Amino acid sequence: MASSPTSFSDRLLGASKPERRLARSLYESVTNLPIVSPHGHVPVELLADPEARLGPPGRLFVSGDHYVLRMLYSQGIRLEELGVAPLDGGPVESDDRKIWQRFTDNLELFAGTPSLLWMAATLANVFGIEKRLTSANARAVYDLLAERLQSADFAPRALLDRFAIEVLATTDAAESELESHRRLREDGWGERVRPTFRPDAVTALGSVSWSESLKRLELVCEREIGDYRAFVAALEERRGYFKTLGATASDHSVETVRTERLSETEAEAIFQRALRGEATQDEARRFEAHMLWEMARMSCEDGLVMQIRAGSMRDHNRGLKEHFGSDIGADIPVALDWTRGLQPLLAAHGDNPRLRLILSTLDESTYSRELAPLAGHYPAVLLGPPWWFHDSRNGIDRYLDSVSETAGFYNLAGFVDDARNLVAIPARHDVWRRVTCAWLARKVLLGSLDEENAARIASELACGLARKAYRLPNERGEISSRPSS
Amino acid sequence: MASSPTSFSDRLLGASKPERRLARSLYESVTNLPIVSPHGHVPVELLADPEARLGPPGRLFVSGDHYVLRMLYSQGIRLEELGVAPLDGGPVESDDRKIWQRFTDNLELFAGTPSLLWMAATLANVFGIEKRLTSANARAVYDLLAERLQSADFAPRALLDRFAIEVLATTDAAESELESHRRLREDGWGERVRPTFRPDAVTALGSVSWSESLKRLELVCEREIGDYRAFVAALEERRGYFKTLGATASDHSVETVRTERLSETEAEAIFQRALRGEATQDEARRFEAHMLWEMARMSCEDGLVMQIRAGSMRDHNRGLKEHFGSDIGADIPVALDWTRGLQPLLAAHGDNPRLRLILSTLDESTYSRELAPLAGHYPAVLLGPPWWFHDSRNGIDRYLDSVSETAGFYNLAGFVDDARNLVAIPARHDVWRRVTCAWLARKVLLGSLDEENAARIASELACGLARKAYRLPNERGEISSRPSS
Amino acid sequence: MASSPTSFSDRLLGASKPERRLARSLYESVTNLPIVSPHGHVPVELLADPEARLGPPGRLFVSGDHYVLRMLYSQGIRLEELGVAPLDGGPVESDDRKIWQRFTDNLELFAGTPSLLWMAATLANVFGIEKRLTSANARAVYDLLAERLQSADFAPRALLDRFAIEVLATTDAAESELESHRRLREDGWGERVRPTFRPDAVTALGSVSWSESLKRLELVCEREIGDYRAFVAALEERRGYFKTLGATASDHSVETVRTERLSETEAEAIFQRALRGEATQDEARRFEAHMLWEMARMSCEDGLVMQIRAGSMRDHNRGLKEHFGSDIGADIPVALDWTRGLQPLLAAHGDNPRLRLILSTLDESTYSRELAPLAGHYPAVLLGPPWWFHDSRNGIDRYLDSVSETAGFYNLAGFVDDARNLVAIPARHDVWRRVTCAWLARKVLLGSLDEENAARIASELACGLARKAYRLPNERGEISSRPSS
Repeated sequence: MASSPTSFSDRLLGASKPERRLARSLYESVTNLPIVSPHGHVPVELLADPEARLGPPGRLFVSGDHYVLRMLYSQGIRLEELGVAPLDGGPVESDDRKIWQRFTDNLELFAGTPSLLWMAATLANVFGIEKRLTSANARAVYDLLAERLQSADFAPRALLDRFAIEVLATTDAAESELESHRRLREDGWGERVRPTFRPDAVTALGSVSWSESLKRLELVCEREIGDYRAFVAALEERRGYFKTLGATASDHSVETVRTERLSETEAEAIFQRALRGEATQDEARRFEAHMLWEMARMSCEDGLVMQIRAGSMRDHNRGLKEHFGSDIGADIPVALDWTRGLQPLLAAHGDNPRLRLILSTLDESTYSRELAPLAGHYPAVLLGPPWWFHDSRNGIDRYLDSVSETAGFYNLAGFVDDARNLVAIPARHDVWRRVTCAWLARKVLLGSLDEENAARIASELACGLARKAYRLPNERGEISSRPSS
Repeated sequence: MASSPTSFSDRLLGASKPERRLARSLYESVTNLPIVSPHGHVPVELLADPEARLGPPGRLFVSGDHYVLRMLYSQGIRLEELGVAPLDGGPVESDDRKIWQRFTDNLELFAGTPSLLWMAATLANVFGIEKRLTSANARAVYDLLAERLQSADFAPRALLDRFAIEVLATTDAAESELESHRRLREDGWGERVRPTFRPDAVTALGSVSWSESLKRLELVCEREIGDYRAFVAALEERRGYFKTLGATASDHSVETVRTERLSETEAEAIFQRALRGEATQDEARRFEAHMLWEMARMSCEDGLVMQIRAGSMRDHNRGLKEHFGSDIGADIPVALDWTRGLQPLLAAHGDNPRLRLILSTLDESTYSRELAPLAGHYPAVLLGPPWWFHDSRNGIDRYLDSVSETAGFYNLAGFVDDARNLVAIPARHDVWRRVTCAWLARKVLLGSLDEENAARIASELACGLARKAYRLPNERGEISSRPSS
Repeated sequence: MASSPTSFSDRLLGASKPERRLARSLYESVTNLPIVSPHGHVPVELLADPEARLGPPGRLFVSGDHYVLRMLYSQGIRLEELGVAPLDGGPVESDDRKIWQRFTDNLELFAGTPSLLWMAATLANVFGIEKRLTSANARAVYDLLAERLQSADFAPRALLDRFAIEVLATTDAAESELESHRRLREDGWGERVRPTFRPDAVTALGSVSWSESLKRLELVCEREIGDYRAFVAALEERRGYFKTLGATASDHSVETVRTERLSETEAEAIFQRALRGEATQDEARRFEAHMLWEMARMSCEDGLVMQIRAGSMRDHNRGLKEHFGSDIGADIPVALDWTRGLQPLLAAHGDNPRLRLILSTLDESTYSRELAPLAGHYPAVLLGPPWWFHDSRNGIDRYLDSVSETAGFYNLAGFVDDARNLVAIPARHDVWRRVTCAWLARKVLLGSLDEENAARIASELACGLARKAYRLPNERGEISSRPSS
C-alpha cells in the first residue's frame, strides 16, 4: 500500500499531519515530567526488599495480568495453562517459557487493545527490544527479558529511579501490618512509596470472609472489637497509622453506589447481628452504605483523600472464582446511579473544604450525565480518570469529550495507572500523555482552546492535577489546598 | 510552536483545512439568518420596560449565570462572594466589580467549556471587545461593559433588533399575571416576545410550596379552586389566556418520566387529599404523571406545542438550596426511561396530528436508544436540541451523531438557547450554527450527504425547524402544519 | 462551493484524503469477498420457488420496509397510504406506483439515514440506476425497477448467485413446517439457504397467542404436548430437525435480559397453569427466563449457535399494533442489564466450549460497560454487530470504538444484515465493509494498528468472523472450533 505508515514514535498522536505535529509538540513538553502514581497495585514487598526482582516474563506479563488472562480465556485457553494455580492444588503450567509462548502465539487477539500498546512500549522503552514481538521471536525475547529482569538494573527500586516515579501509592488492606511500608520509610523511601487505606474487607459485613478480616483487624490493633464504637475507633486509629507511613488517601470499591446515615443505635444493632453471623444481606448493604458515609466523615477530620471506585460486579464467573479465586479477569461492570446514591453523603460533606472525594466509574454513560455535573458543582468532588476497561485510546477520548465541557479540567483528578506490573507503569502514563496531547491538539486546531492553555492543561493532566488531587507535594514541596492551584 | 493557530473567526468550524473551508461556506449561508428563540429564561420585565437596562457586568455574567456559579463554587468559592444573597439576609458581596474580578481571576477553570466560548464571542460581537479577557484587563473591560450596558443602544428592546431576534419566548408560571406580556403586546411587540405556559408549580402536588402556588392560581383566575374539575378548568382557561398573548407552547420539567391516566374519581380523591395536606408522595407522583397526560390532551385541543424537559434532579445540594434557593447550579441529572414512561401518553395522543411533543433530555444515553426511535415513529414527537450541560461543541456533535441516522433531521425541533442572559443569545446560536455546519461539512466530505442537502439542513437547523416545531410563522407569515414542511 | 465533492464510489471511506486513500485500499481487498449472511428475514418462500419474483417496487422498498414506514409515518403519512393493509380489512392504497411516489416525494426525510444510503447503492449497483432518485424521476425509475424485478435475472436464486451470497440464513418459527427449506435442500440449495430456529412464540407463555403457537407446535410434532417434559422434548426434536435442513443457529428475541434456572417441578407447575390460561405475568417471565437457560443447555448439547437479541419493546404504539399488526416500525428500545440478567445462564454454561452465545443490543451504553467485558472473558460469548437502528455509519463507528479495545476483534461475531429485502443485502454489507475499512484506516494512521493487521481484520470483519461465529464452513469447507481460528 502506498501510504507511509505512522512511525512508532508518533503513535496515538494524530491521524493527520497537522494534528500529529501539534500533538507532538505538546507531548514533548510533558514527556519528561515525573510520573506521579497515586493509585495502583504494585506489591509493596517488591519495593521493600532491595534485593527483590520482578517475576519471570510469563508470570509478570501473563499469569499476573488480568487483562491478558481474560482475553486468552475468552478464546478457550484454560487458566491453568497460563500459570494460574487452582485453589484445590490441581495441576498448573509451571514452565514459565510455555506460558509466555502461549501468550505470544495468540498476540493477534490483542490487536487494537491497550494491552498490546503497553506491551510494545514496555519492550521498546524499558527493555530496549524494538523489534515487534511475534510467536517466532518469542523465545529469544524471553531470554532477553528473563536476563534483564534478574539484573540489578531492573530491581524494583532501581526502576522507580529510572522511570522518574516521583511517588507511587500501593493499595493496602485496613488490617494490614504495613511491615513493608515501615521498612521503606526506614530506608528513606517513605515519601516516594506510600500506602493507601482500603477498608473494604472489614466494612463488607455481607462477605463470607468478613469475620476473618475483622479478626485480622483486631490482631493488628491488639484489642478486641466487640461493638460498633470500637470498630469505628479501630478504623480511625488505622487511618492515623497509615498517615504516619505517608498515606494521603483511602480507597473504596463498591458494586453500586449507596450512601446512608444510620443512627449509632442502628449501626450497633446491625454490627452485633453481623458478629453473630445473623445480619441479612439488606442490613449488610445498609451498613456498607453507612460506612461510606462514615469514611467521608473521617476524611473531613483527618484529611485523607477519599477514592470511590464503583460499578464492578466482582467475580461474575462464580465457578471460576471458586476454582481460582478473584482478580483473574472475570469482573463485569454494571450501570450506576451516582446522583441518588451519593446524595446523602454529599448533603452532609460535599461542601466541606477538608473533604476531597475522587469518583471513578466503569459506566461511561455517567460521565456526562452525573459525574461531570457533580464534579462541576461540589467543592469536595473530583473526577477520577478513565478506569480499567476504559484506560485506552478511545476510552480516554470519550472521557475528555464527555467531561471537560461541564467539569472543566481543574475538577479532574489527573491520571492514575492502577498497575500491578511495575515495568508497565511508564507505558500506561505514556499512552495517557499521548492521547491527552492529541486530544488537546485537536481542540487547538478546532479553535476551541488556545495553545498556551493547551500546554498548561497537558502538563496538569500529566502530573500536576494528580499531585493536587491527592495532596502530594509539588516540585517545590508544597501541598495544594485547592485542586486548581 | 510551528503550527498556525486557527483564527477566532474560524473557531469550531473544523480541525482540518478542507473541513474548515466547507464548513465556513455553509456557515456563511446561515450566519445572517434571524434568531428564533422559542425557549429561554430572559426576564420578561426587562423587555416590557423600554427604559430598562441589563444588570451590571458582575450580576449579568456571574451572579445570574448558574453555569458560572457552579464552576466557581466547585473550586471552593462561596456563593456569597459571587453576589448570591443568602435567604436569611446574611452578608453578601455587593461590590459588582469585585464579583467580576473574582470571575476573571478564575478564568482558567472555564478552559474548554461553552461558558468561555460564549463569553469571548459576546465580548467581541456584542461589545466590540476583541482582546482576550484576563485577570489583568478585567477592570478596564468592566468599565467598558458597564458603560455600554447603561446606554440606550443596549436597552433590551434595542438588542432584540440588533440581534435580529425574530421571536423570543419567555417561560412563565401558569399562575403568572402576564402583566409584562400584556404591555409588550400593547406596544406592538406581542408577535416577537411571547410567553410560554409552565404549570409545574401548580401540578407538583408533592412540593412544599404547592398550596401557595395554587392560591396564586386562584387569585389570577379570580375564583376558588376547590376540586379537581375546577383545577383542570382553571388550567385550560390560563392556557387560553396565554395564547391570546402569543404563547405557542407549554413547558414541563420533570425529574423522571412518568405518565398515567387516572380516572376522574381517582384524580379528584388525590386532589382533595392534597388540599388537606394529606397526599402521599406516591399519590403526588401519580397525580403529576396524570397531569402530564392531561396536558397532552389539552394540547390536542388548543394546539399549544408541549415541551417536556426531563432528567434533572433539582437542588441536589439540599443545604445550599435552604441557604440560597434554587437555580444556583446544584441540579444534577439522572438516568431516564422515556420508552416506558411516555407509553401511556403516546398510546392516547401520539398519533394525533394536533399534538406536537418536544422531548429534551439530560441523559444522552437515551438519544439513540429511545428518543430518536420515538421521534422517528410517532407523528407527535419531535426531539429537542442538546440541553443545558450538553449545549456545547461535543454535546452537539454527540447529539447529531446519535440521533440523525434514526430520526433524520425533520423530526428535530431545531435549536433553543435556554438563555437567561439576553446578551448571550447570539453567542449561543452562533455556537450551534458553527458546530452544526462543521458536522454537516464532515458528512459531505465523507460522502454521506451532498452539499445541496447539507446547505438546506444547515438552514433548517439554524431557524427553520424551530419555527415549524413551535408553530411560529415563517418569513412569509405561514405556520406549518407538519414539522418537515 | 469550492471544495470538490467526494465521489459516490468513495462514499464513507474517509473525510480526508489520506484516510480515504488507505481506506480504499483496505476496501478493495474485501469488496469482492463473498457475502455471508447468517441472520436475516428474507422470506424463504421466495427462494424455494425458482419462478418467484420479488414484489413490485412500492411493496419491496416501502410497504415492506419498517425503517421506511416509520419515518414516513413520523411525518404524518398514514400507513394505509403506504400500502399497509389494516387488519380489519379497511381501505388501503393498492396502486403500487402511488406508494413509490409517496416515498420519493419525501426523500428529504431520509437525508443522513442508512435507508437512503442503502437505496442509492441498491439502485446503482443492483439495478444500474446511477442517477440520483428524485420525486421528478420517480415514475421512470419505477418502470425500470418493475421491469427488471420481473425478469429472470432478478429471480431470487439468480440474485443469490449475482450477489455472491455464500450462505443466507432465514429466521423460522420453531413450529414452522420448513416446507420451503426442504424444497431448497432437494434442489441442492441446502448449504446456501439455511433455516434458523426461533422459538420465541412457543416460549412466550405471557403472550395472547401462546396457546395457538403451542397448537402449531403440536401439529408439526404430530403429538400432544401436555406437560413441560413433552414441551422440552418437542423443542429438542425440532432443533434436531432444523439441523438436518442446515440450521446452525437459534435466535431469541427478548425485551429485557433475564435468565433463571427453575426446578423441573416449578417449570411444570407454571406450564400447567399456562395451559389452563392461569399463569401470571410474573410466572410467564420466569418461565421465559428459564427457557433461555434451557436453550443454552440444548445448545451445549446440539451445537446450535445461540443468538440473543435484546432490548426492543415491541409494538410500543399499541393502537397501531391493533390496527395493523407488528413489524410496522413501532418498536422502541429500552435500557438493558446484561450483567445481572445473563449471570445465571453464564454461571452454568459460559465456560462450555460447546456453547456459542452471540449477544446483540439496542442499548449502546452496554457496548463498553457490559458486552465487551462479557465477550472479553467468557469463552462462550461473542458480540453481535450493531443492530437495527445502529446498523449505520455512526452506529458502526460507535460500536468499533466502544468494543474493540476491550473485546478485541476475535470476540466479535462479524456482520449480519438482518435484511428482509433481498436486493438490499449487498448494500448493507457494503456499508459495513466501507465503514469498518475507514475505521481501520484511521487506526493505522493513528499508529495504533499496523496495516498488515488492519487488512486481516478487514477481511475477518467482512466475512471470516461470521463464518466462524455461526459454525459455517470456510473457503476450504472447514468449520472452526474456536472463534479466532
